[in-house]
Amino acid sequence: MTIKDIARKAGVSVSTVSRALNGHPDVSEALRKKILEIVRAEHYVPNSSARDLVLQESDTIGLIVRGIGNPFFTELIPLIEEAIVRSGYTPFVEQIATGADEIRAGAALARSKKLRGLIFLGGRFDYTEEDVAVLSVPFVCCSYTNSFGTLPETSYSSVSIDDEKTAALAVTTLTERGHKRIAVILDTMEDHSISELRYRGYLSALRDAGIEPDPALVVETNAFTMPEAYRGIRRLAASGTEFTAVFSISDSMAVAAIRALVDAGKRVPEDCSVIAIDGIPFTEYTVPVLTTLVQPTRTMAERSVSTLIGVIEGRGKHRHLLLETGLRTGGSVRPRTV
Amino acid sequence: MTIKDIARKAGVSVSTVSRALNGHPDVSEALRKKILEIVRAEHYVPNSSARDLVLQESDTIGLIVRGIGNPFFTELIPLIEEAIVRSGYTPFVEQIATGADEIRAGAALARSKKLRGLIFLGGRFDYTEEDVAVLSVPFVCCSYTNSFGTLPETSYSSVSIDDEKTAALAVTTLTERGHKRIAVILDTMEDHSISELRYRGYLSALRDAGIEPDPALVVETNAFTMPEAYRGIRRLAASGTEFTAVFSISDSMAVAAIRALVDAGKRVPEDCSVIAIDGIPFTEYTVPVLTTLVQPTRTMAERSVSTLIGVIEGRGKHRHLLLETGLRTGGSVRPRTV
Repeated sequence: MTIKDIARKAGVSVSTVSRALNGHPDVSEALRKKILEIVRAEHYVPNSSARDLVLQESDTIGLIVRGIGNPFFTELIPLIEEAIVRSGYTPFVEQIATGADEIRAGAALARSKKLRGLIFLGGRFDYTEEDVAVLSVPFVCCSYTNSFGTLPETSYSSVSIDDEKTAALAVTTLTERGHKRIAVILDTMEDHSISELRYRGYLSALRDAGIEPDPALVVETNAFTMPEAYRGIRRLAASGTEFTAVFSISDSMAVAAIRALVDAGKRVPEDCSVIAIDGIPFTEYTVPVLTTLVQPTRTMAERSVSTLIGVIEGRGKHRHLLLETGLRTGGSVRPRTV
Repeated sequence: MTIKDIARKAGVSVSTVSRALNGHPDVSEALRKKILEIVRAEHYVPNSSARDLVLQESDTIGLIVRGIGNPFFTELIPLIEEAIVRSGYTPFVEQIATGADEIRAGAALARSKKLRGLIFLGGRFDYTEEDVAVLSVPFVCCSYTNSFGTLPETSYSSVSIDDEKTAALAVTTLTERGHKRIAVILDTMEDHSISELRYRGYLSALRDAGIEPDPALVVETNAFTMPEAYRGIRRLAASGTEFTAVFSISDSMAVAAIRALVDAGKRVPEDCSVIAIDGIPFTEYTVPVLTTLVQPTRTMAERSVSTLIGVIEGRGKHRHLLLETGLRTGGSVRPRTV
């Protein structure tokens, strides 16, 4: 007795049997009951691992999270799961290390779980067609773009903020308040990834304000971690380089930067302002509350899921959404006293 | 050609062939080569998904993480992965929601990935034998105990801190500095879980110091979240109830508590001391640095993995380890000025 036999007996397609067995909401209750009766009568697929082998498709959407210590992802994961469940699919969340290969992990998961689609939360910004050829299911890049890659836009989806524009907004918030000596804290200036895009935004905001960039104000952490951000700002403060504000490309590095400024004898925001991008819940509770451009996590989760499911179900096409951030006015930025 | 045929040709057991193919360290290099030559000669298992179906076991250890927003887990995940890889096994990390059923998720993963063993990072404290009967592989509870359950000690392992003793240590740190009016912030007093154990420790430290517990000083958040911790401490501060210190059962709720105290016009630590349990990296960078009892995350990860692998390989027995915490002297606790 195979799934084909069940389908023949029920007078429906194999795909309908599969969807019925997976509790898919587009199968009517009456039809589901009929199929389940046949399944029971024929003693078909007594355990789910046998079922997994037989079915051609499941109702599962994989979420590959690359970068375990990222508090921004921590906030997005449950929102994406919720959106998947609400859409009648089943989420499966796999975590991989920051430097791991999300495409390979996604391809393996797609095979073992017979996925319908994949959401990558964090990944490289420079995919080629060859890189993603191993993926047998549609995918969406959540929270990042493929700005440095060569994938045709029609072959995948992405939902993220505009990194360059958002960074420019953050830095303009500082220049508008009279700051001219603005330090930036990032991974590396040329990482072909998030740091490079946000550094471009920093430069363009300075340019717009008529400020000459000073390489001495660029703090590269080479690691994206709080300890490295702390050390970088301590070094900058000890170097004698004058600065009245810091733009951090992430909330968590901004928290370490504030600590470093305080330890170096500078008050925040009286002596030095700090602004960032992310808006993780934690920084709503720091002293002072972090002023930051908040990523719209709920919208990002929902659009990622709805876009992917549109493609899976043949209702929609791949698309590339750039979402707006919102300024959270905390207590870490104030006008420069001239 | 099946795995049995390979085993017969090589003159070894099926299990040895499986271990050789999975790169298991207990198979000699010479024997592995011999087996691989037969495999190649016979064109056996050309792809890994066919291999997964045929092999009775893999080299994979599953890590089920229950509770996505928990920053303490975020720190433990890469440490556990590292320890698994160092031991010659392959980790597979699945994330499930805070309220989800980790045993069911573990049983499904054990089937689909042919796991050798399971590590639960976060879970219920009250398992029965019936609950865990679905698990076909050995497991270890990492960072929690089964204090409210009825599992025989010989049927599973656990590696955690002693919740009651650690809470008592934290509160004694406060009583020794002259504090008598000590608030506690927890989920609920009777959750049959971590809050209940740490609340017991709070009570016993008060008792040891000759202090009568005051129910008005218990802040129940019913959620373990920062917003609820913030609201709880704001309510307590507004109630007029006198207190000079707060014991929070987690670092993240302590951060929210400090913010609430500051917003209520109290200085930390001058007007109110705050101490917690966890020692997440984030709270090393808050202003003030959080004084907290630091969980030994690296040791916890390594012992969880080594204990489990000892059981898997038949070298060790199930055991229950209680690890010591260390006091991080931050800036959030000071002697009460009387």
